[in-house]
Amino acid sequence: VPTYHWEDFALGDVADYGPRVVTREEIVAFAAEFDPQPMHLDEDAARASMLGGLAASGWHTCAILMRMLCDWFVLDSSSMGAPGVDEVKWLRPLRPGDSLSIRRTVLETRASNSRPAMGFVKFHYDLTNQTGATVMTLVTPMMLERRHPGSAVAGGRETAVQA
Amino acid sequence: VPTYHWEDFALGDVADYGPRVVTREEIVAFAAEFDPQPMHLDEDAARASMLGGLAASGWHTCAILMRMLCDWFVLDSSSMGAPGVDEVKWLRPLRPGDSLSIRRTVLETRASNSRPAMGFVKFHYDLTNQTGATVMTLVTPMMLERRHPGSAVAGGRETAVQA
Repeated sequence: VPTYHWEDFALGDVADYGPRVVTREEIVAFAAEFDPQPMHLDEDAARASMLGGLAASGWHTCAILMRMLCDWFVLDSSSMGAPGVDEVKWLRPLRPGDSLSIRRTVLETRASNSRPAMGFVKFHYDLTNQTGATVMTLVTPMMLERRHPGSAVAGGRETAVQA
Repeated sequence: VPTYHWEDFALGDVADYGPRVVTREEIVAFAAEFDPQPMHLDEDAARASMLGGLAASGWHTCAILMRMLCDWFVLDSSSMGAPGVDEVKWLRPLRPGDSLSIRRTVLETRASNSRPAMGFVKFHYDLTNQTGATVMTLVTPMMLERRHPGSAVAGGRETAVQA
């Protein structure tokens, strides 16, 4: 039985996780497979780009965040996945050797209208580097099983619960 | 000199690219590194999940889209990267053996207010499988160098151009 269910996240909750170091080898390997723009692959090309030096693909930053979330709480939760992402902002380059930390804030929590066993939690993630500067922010809803399915159902009709 | 600059994209332009087959090996390899939830790694666990069978991490779908965009036009463009992503919707599972195609629509194009050599193009991407069903939609602005920098500057003061 996982530790975290839908009921374990409340509006406004803030929690922190990290750090996790990102290497040059990882940055170049991801870029070679998924985003082979020269600014993510080659130091000289990157220096001449807006990034001012080698930096990770923004999609790599998203993937690293996902892995950190898995290691932190997702794999020990009743996660049912996510319907998408509301917003991603790539604010600063992610450099080789950077050390990433996450601040997670709960923006919204509500029961599913159609599935009594499920709830949604909308998270805001702030990913910072070793200087405390924000590299990326991301807002995404997560679907989780409820510890007490259907407790919001009244008179045979489910009522949405907004925390 | 790249083929595509900011000026080559006009409001409402629609273009198609693909297909590209996704293998089980890729799905499992990405998940093992970045999103090791059982529904992305293990057929039995996936069958018991909302996905109803093994399916790619949504972040993998994003990364595959990025690679297809690179192979299609990004590497032959004056791309300066992207400030983020406006929206991602994961609408259907991406299964082993699925064949992906992209429809790209230009939602907006405007010159940069602060950088005369740069413009923004906002793209909507519709990623479909071999049955024509949409797997993912994604909206993201791209920054591109202009073929004719500063042509929107008048009287020493830059004017934003909205196509």
